[in-house]
Amino acid sequence: MSKSLPKRSEDYSAWYNELVKRADLAENSAVRGCMVIKPYGFAIWEKMQQTLDRMFKETGHSNAYFPLFVPKSLFEAEEQNAEGFAKECAIVTHYRLKADPDKKGKLMVDPDAKLEEELIVRPTSEAIIWNTYKGWIQSYRDLPLLINQWANVVRWEMRTRLFLRTAEFLWQEGHTAHATKQEAMEETTRMLDVYAEFAHDFLALPVIKGIKTANERFAGAEETFCIEAMMQDGKALQAGTSHFLGQNFAKAFDVKFADKSGGLEYVWGTSWGVSTRLMGALIMAHSDDNGLVLPPKLAPWQVVIVPVVFGNDNEALYARCKELKASLQKAGISVMLDDRDTQKPGWKFAEYELKGVPVRLAIGNRDLQNNSVELARRDTLEKSMVSLDGIEDYIKNLLDEIQTNIYQKALNFREKQTRIVDDYATFQRLLDEDPGFILAHWDGTPETEEKIKNETKATIRCIPLEREEEPGTCMVTGNPSAGRVLFARAY
Amino acid sequence: MSKSLPKRSEDYSAWYNELVKRADLAENSAVRGCMVIKPYGFAIWEKMQQTLDRMFKETGHSNAYFPLFVPKSLFEAEEQNAEGFAKECAIVTHYRLKADPDKKGKLMVDPDAKLEEELIVRPTSEAIIWNTYKGWIQSYRDLPLLINQWANVVRWEMRTRLFLRTAEFLWQEGHTAHATKQEAMEETTRMLDVYAEFAHDFLALPVIKGIKTANERFAGAEETFCIEAMMQDGKALQAGTSHFLGQNFAKAFDVKFADKSGGLEYVWGTSWGVSTRLMGALIMAHSDDNGLVLPPKLAPWQVVIVPVVFGNDNEALYARCKELKASLQKAGISVMLDDRDTQKPGWKFAEYELKGVPVRLAIGNRDLQNNSVELARRDTLEKSMVSLDGIEDYIKNLLDEIQTNIYQKALNFREKQTRIVDDYATFQRLLDEDPGFILAHWDGTPETEEKIKNETKATIRCIPLEREEEPGTCMVTGNPSAGRVLFARAY
Repeated sequence: MSKSLPKRSEDYSAWYNELVKRADLAENSAVRGCMVIKPYGFAIWEKMQQTLDRMFKETGHSNAYFPLFVPKSLFEAEEQNAEGFAKECAIVTHYRLKADPDKKGKLMVDPDAKLEEELIVRPTSEAIIWNTYKGWIQSYRDLPLLINQWANVVRWEMRTRLFLRTAEFLWQEGHTAHATKQEAMEETTRMLDVYAEFAHDFLALPVIKGIKTANERFAGAEETFCIEAMMQDGKALQAGTSHFLGQNFAKAFDVKFADKSGGLEYVWGTSWGVSTRLMGALIMAHSDDNGLVLPPKLAPWQVVIVPVVFGNDNEALYARCKELKASLQKAGISVMLDDRDTQKPGWKFAEYELKGVPVRLAIGNRDLQNNSVELARRDTLEKSMVSLDGIEDYIKNLLDEIQTNIYQKALNFREKQTRIVDDYATFQRLLDEDPGFILAHWDGTPETEEKIKNETKATIRCIPLEREEEPGTCMVTGNPSAGRVLFARAY
Repeated sequence: MSKSLPKRSEDYSAWYNELVKRADLAENSAVRGCMVIKPYGFAIWEKMQQTLDRMFKETGHSNAYFPLFVPKSLFEAEEQNAEGFAKECAIVTHYRLKADPDKKGKLMVDPDAKLEEELIVRPTSEAIIWNTYKGWIQSYRDLPLLINQWANVVRWEMRTRLFLRTAEFLWQEGHTAHATKQEAMEETTRMLDVYAEFAHDFLALPVIKGIKTANERFAGAEETFCIEAMMQDGKALQAGTSHFLGQNFAKAFDVKFADKSGGLEYVWGTSWGVSTRLMGALIMAHSDDNGLVLPPKLAPWQVVIVPVVFGNDNEALYARCKELKASLQKAGISVMLDDRDTQKPGWKFAEYELKGVPVRLAIGNRDLQNNSVELARRDTLEKSMVSLDGIEDYIKNLLDEIQTNIYQKALNFREKQTRIVDDYATFQRLLDEDPGFILAHWDGTPETEEKIKNETKATIRCIPLEREEEPGTCMVTGNPSAGRVLFARAY
């Protein structure tokens, strides 16, 4: 707790980087662009995983596991997909090291152990999975195939940032196969809804559901759906995508099924994913200059108990703290009791504030006499004295209230920072002076989209699913537009 | 269900391979030596993961995540470890593909995108983790560090078999750091005990705990502990290892801590792991010529309900099956109701027998009138009529009984096939004619161990932790021995 964090208002980017490191969430590793996810950060990711995994299973999906490597010949089979990822992939070319004859104790790649065919470390698994599906799908009885995989993937990004953009990241990728176009499209939007629900209910993060423009579409998809969230600096963060693949991968890998009348048809596909990027979204959406602010539903510890001890003779206090921990746990609340004697209470207060524990209980001997504790809320930083009688119910309700409050705060901010703009000058000015989402008319051409991106660094985040069909004119070209699209600068 | 499995007595190896594929557990992929774990197989692995993860957390460990890649300079830092894995590792040398000018639509490795330093795909993570621990450990307050990682690793094995030996596999690897040798040794044996308990209580697999000889030790460890199980062909399978690393990795990566008196000391380490190999152990230990036999605690479905329908008018039957499913689920039993009309009851019976579902309930309209069902136990293949009244408790007890029975059967087999042998001729004859474990005297030298291995293909599986100190003479050299060690041919 040596020094305070950079302030968001002064250097948002430095604030984020420092916060991730100092709250023990993640750090850079010895491998360029790859991160180490530390235990506290990983505990949050595990909560996300468990929740999403349950939601996937409730919607009929099963987990499976496919190889880390994709042979080059499979990788290049779906050309658009291959082109999209070719520039940023890690390639295995050899399978053995040997002693370096010139450097004692050192190793070198054994030139005799060159692979006949290079292996790509998966940047995404459509190729290897659709090649496998070919063997699994013969008839309509084998459909739908609803599979998810939790895995690591590698994309050789040049500029990386902890959680937001790393060379290796953890994610889940759903890959489904269907007999009809309609079913595949329903699956695509169903999983988009699952992501939006997860963001809303667990991340406490309001998101806008929409469709990507052709420029921003997943390589190999016919349509990409997304959820877009706003960070506290007004920039957008794409928090999840769900792709309607059409028959692209079925055709590339020759996956056909016999329909009920015996005819052979290509299968329809979807894929959808969220990643450890959600950790970045969670941190950037809610935290403040004092540190993390975690929604109770994803906090590794919802409550921390800190005994405030002076001198000796604290046996009764420690015993009461243990009792309190046990009774809160019995009520389904996750609790950390920090009774270490190697750190002072003040140090602990700062530490758990930095780590975003939603509720802190501090108990001293005098509190014990009064049968009360000091309760501090992390989201509002408010403190109050609370009776120990019935504290379990009090805290359960409070955790719900905090979860709702964090969401509402993010929603209020997003609404304030979402503006309807009709002229390009205002558009440009707002992006620089008061960033946020901008709803504006666009003529629907990739050229205009590209021009806006080059001139302002803002991209079309999505064509919102829920938008009013409002005819207008493009703010740049004056050509007709069917409705407003969502612009922002983005992570 | 076209044809039956090969018989264990005729071709154990073919039986295993066919069973893994036909029970939908796993299959070979397009990538040499890498497998696809299919949903049914993965569901069993998930149950193992959840159980082990809980046991690790109950013993104070947290999960974290470290990079997939290890830079060559870190990989070679601990020389014994590097030497042990150098011959079988996948090496990333490039980070970009480009269009092949000679082949339209094809890609090639971009020679301009060569990495300055090659990256090894982790075969195990000691190097990258100890390099990270250097930054995490300064003082005794930072110890012990008790961390586990669930991950994929790659070892370029030349001869692979589904689950038992694959180029990529899934595992967990615990990596802990301690202030004293004694603490590290206690951790090493504690985790060995966790593995043995898991094998006993969940895999229904008796194991022998022991210490590896120097020849069989993990590269970089000072002592390797293991659990050894017996398969139905009498061969041994190493089901988990726990390594006491001494200060080897602390010295290689310069990880020191300030002790309470301010002196700087090297940290003591352990690592321990189990992998998807446990799937192979589970399959080979219990299954029979009809298919899988799963212990109820790891079965994705503990009970399958098959409605036996003739003609039409089965509404009441289907409704009763759904009720039964719900009431069993409410009792904490996992249930599959297979009411598909695309397959006949006989096909379903064979399918779930192949898949090892512990209890099958078949219900026809006549059974409904009698308020009973036909119950078939997978482990004994016994059938009986059971009343629907109180069936929840009946099945809960039965599942416990099945779990115990499967364990006892494996234990009886192991005891029958474990022999005390004093002469080398008998040793050799038994290995060929009646394979199993052999307890024999050995003079303690690597040379004799090597000679026995070369002549008989049997290895010392371990020096059992629980053995009588019984002085004897080596069956090969006649030199003195302090006690018997465990020999077998092994997977």
